[in-house]
Amino acid sequence: MKHLLLSAALAASLILPAYGAEPAPIPSPGEIAAAAPASDWVAIAPSDLLVMDLAPDAKGKPRHVVIQLMSAPFSQGWIGNIRKLAAAHWWDGTSVNRVQDNYVAQWGDATEKKALPTGLTAVSESRYVASDPASGQAAVDGKPAIRLSKDEANRRAKQFEQAGKGDIFGGASMADAYAPGVMFESGWPIGYSSAQVPDSRWPLHCYGAVGVGRNLSPDTGSGAELYAVIGHAPRHLDRNIAVVGRVISGIEHLSSLPRGTGALGFYEDAAERVAITSIRVATELPAADQPRFEYLSTESDSFARYADARANRRDPFFITPAGGADICNIPVPVRPVAAK
Amino acid sequence: MKHLLLSAALAASLILPAYGAEPAPIPSPGEIAAAAPASDWVAIAPSDLLVMDLAPDAKGKPRHVVIQLMSAPFSQGWIGNIRKLAAAHWWDGTSVNRVQDNYVAQWGDATEKKALPTGLTAVSESRYVASDPASGQAAVDGKPAIRLSKDEANRRAKQFEQAGKGDIFGGASMADAYAPGVMFESGWPIGYSSAQVPDSRWPLHCYGAVGVGRNLSPDTGSGAELYAVIGHAPRHLDRNIAVVGRVISGIEHLSSLPRGTGALGFYEDAAERVAITSIRVATELPAADQPRFEYLSTESDSFARYADARANRRDPFFITPAGGADICNIPVPVRPVAAK
Repeated sequence: MKHLLLSAALAASLILPAYGAEPAPIPSPGEIAAAAPASDWVAIAPSDLLVMDLAPDAKGKPRHVVIQLMSAPFSQGWIGNIRKLAAAHWWDGTSVNRVQDNYVAQWGDATEKKALPTGLTAVSESRYVASDPASGQAAVDGKPAIRLSKDEANRRAKQFEQAGKGDIFGGASMADAYAPGVMFESGWPIGYSSAQVPDSRWPLHCYGAVGVGRNLSPDTGSGAELYAVIGHAPRHLDRNIAVVGRVISGIEHLSSLPRGTGALGFYEDAAERVAITSIRVATELPAADQPRFEYLSTESDSFARYADARANRRDPFFITPAGGADICNIPVPVRPVAAK
Repeated sequence: MKHLLLSAALAASLILPAYGAEPAPIPSPGEIAAAAPASDWVAIAPSDLLVMDLAPDAKGKPRHVVIQLMSAPFSQGWIGNIRKLAAAHWWDGTSVNRVQDNYVAQWGDATEKKALPTGLTAVSESRYVASDPASGQAAVDGKPAIRLSKDEANRRAKQFEQAGKGDIFGGASMADAYAPGVMFESGWPIGYSSAQVPDSRWPLHCYGAVGVGRNLSPDTGSGAELYAVIGHAPRHLDRNIAVVGRVISGIEHLSSLPRGTGALGFYEDAAERVAITSIRVATELPAADQPRFEYLSTESDSFARYADARANRRDPFFITPAGGADICNIPVPVRPVAAK
């Protein structure tokens, strides 16, 4: 097949198929991830998955979107609200109301009049970042401090030291314009307040990130109004809006929606809105319908090799390796768990 | 209106509307661009615009895409081929054949059998970068060297010095993982081989960039197979594929197309392909149909203020300015020229 962006395109897939019968002489990032041992993959608990069903498309095809909720210690106040909203089936009958090109698709109650469930928390702006003192104590969203294991504290200290030199994986650069340090933690791209052992850190607005719409400060949003990033990472939103998760399946059902022609990409005609049939935490679904996913442990050697290969492409398509990569251009590999 | 990402969203627009009756106390990047004097805007010659008409959409609406061709000294060999292909009406009746989420929309001849016009050039891989020695001499795509004015040489030297410190506009960072230095030149985001006065430089794969599909090295592609970036900037393609321009209007007609379900996002069913009615250099169109656009001079003070505001958001929505910005997150403002 001629005129393809062959290996380049393969690398862009989160789930990277074996392509062709012969293994490449030098594996692509996707091939490295695919070859990782099962022990390097981490199952995502169904209780951390949000399943959004949009109304079927014009051809009657179902549109399922699966969102992985952010791990502690990040954004847990908003995520608590989101769990309550899902349990109340609050989003059922709401809609995607805004799709702005190279920016976000946003959903919620277009009337802005639907009553919220009781018991939602008003989260403080201080929770856009998580505290994690150098002592290894972590005060997490108001819960009692937790102690990092010595190994984990040492691992982080080493990563921070490398981040300070602007090189993380095998000498490749992750130089970043938005944060003093960036790193992966428990499968998520994270920013740090210091390239040394940090005292605060926060989740990043990469492609697919899900965030909480809000009004002007000091409002932080309830979690009822959500958006997914469908364009170049709008990292200027980091620490200004809560990131609560990321789309791990079905992003195309949001990213390929018609763009709104109103200000900020809002649909001008109510008929353009895309109906949301339901949003559920996966544990509320019948067992057979619960999606099962796993991610490549960002603490594994396989991930280090994958990230290095993203930064220094040596597979046959490439002639000039970059020597570095934007953290948002090192998507954490996520894949469905194979049926047994 | 509640629950908007208000100023954040405004800033994401290339063309930034005045919003509300009262000016913001601190202007947003878009307001800064909108307030720039007419003398800071540079007209784009219709001879540098490519107009792609896709078949009307399902509702019968026209789909016009306007591409600005890259300025010299970059990629001119491929652009010469593209001019010949457009003059031969070669793309008429071809199609968009591949749409891969968070990556590219690609178009050309799906049969891979259509004869190319005669006279196309096979461009060398060395042309992925442009030479520009510190002497101020520039050897451009094999044409005789040109001499930079003293002012221009001084301006570049100053920018390179600032880039070396990782701060460009008012102290904000444009730290970059992919290139030793990045800067704007004549309206384009450009990478440099050195943070000092460089001896080579190249165009970047930002959102909307148009590049030339190719086979494995040493093939560099003819220009007949093109793609536009519709996701997070795939900067690892820089210096590996020719960038020949950028979409300046109508990107939503590519970015919102259904994603292909085949390998690499190719449409599996020929009926899914999106027909291209015509691609023309704008000067071939009747004068009344020629699109007219202008960009904010990247050498202007207005642009420096705009870029600084992208890196340090001080408008009311934001509570924590980042202190820096990814060069691909500082889109050069482009707008239609108002009718007189």
